Amino acid sequence: MNLANLEQRMHKSKLAGFIIDCQTTDLDRAADFWGSALGMPVRALPPGEGEIYKQLDDLHHGLQIEVQAVNHPSRVHLDIESDDIEAEVQRLEKLGATRIQMIRTWWVMEAPTGQRFCVIRATSKDFDAKASEWS
Amino acid sequence: MNLANLEQRMHKSKLAGFIIDCQTTDLDRAADFWGSALGMPVRALPPGEGEIYKQLDDLHHGLQIEVQAVNHPSRVHLDIESDDIEAEVQRLEKLGATRIQMIRTWWVMEAPTGQRFCVIRATSKDFDAKASEWS
Repeated sequence: MNLANLEQRMHKSKLAGFIIDCQTTDLDRAADFWGSALGMPVRALPPGEGEIYKQLDDLHHGLQIEVQAVNHPSRVHLDIESDDIEAEVQRLEKLGATRIQMIRTWWVMEAPTGQRFCVIRATSKDFDAKASEWS
Repeated sequence: MNLANLEQRMHKSKLAGFIIDCQTTDLDRAADFWGSALGMPVRALPPGEGEIYKQLDDLHHGLQIEVQAVNHPSRVHLDIESDDIEAEVQRLEKLGATRIQMIRTWWVMEAPTGQRFCVIRATSKDFDAKASEWS
């Protein structure tokens, strides 16, 4: 087997963080609650995403945490980040998860245990060092 | 004001991690999925809690992550840890959260945005260094 080809089929993934989905029309108030509850500063995001997302700055765990205004019932969902979203989605399908919907650059999936979660593009600074590698 | 009294009224809290609540009678299978999905080893817990909880070893973020077999619909809930649960619950009530139920040593609360979460006793090794301090 050609090692170069083998390497091409490897990909990485890790827990990116979680999104606090809030069924609300008052994103600021929702983000203020969760920022205060978790002791994390709330940061506005640029136009285009800032209307529905606010970031909570997690200084201690290196997680990406956001509060999102949604229309469905409130929940918390996990994000998995990967350097190859299609390969990661296929890996998760083999574990029993199902594809629900692609949104912009990420896939919404459903676990065999029922929770929705997302597979997103890797952006964590320490992604390469901390991610698991899959073949 | 007496500084000793002031200090007594301070307490600390931080995000402990999250629990993946799975509506299932097959805890092993649920934990295997989530351990594989997140790339985290699954660890059995002692009798008394091992029947409904399995731990996922998070080597990279210092989070307490567990898969729990539950009877209600599957979800993910956050845990906040504190060195003074009653003081922390009162702080969160002032932010708009409500008490739902005390279970053993922890309080189940509901956020003003609707999500259930728990306030638990602090057990993280780096709790003192990373927790926020509240008066």
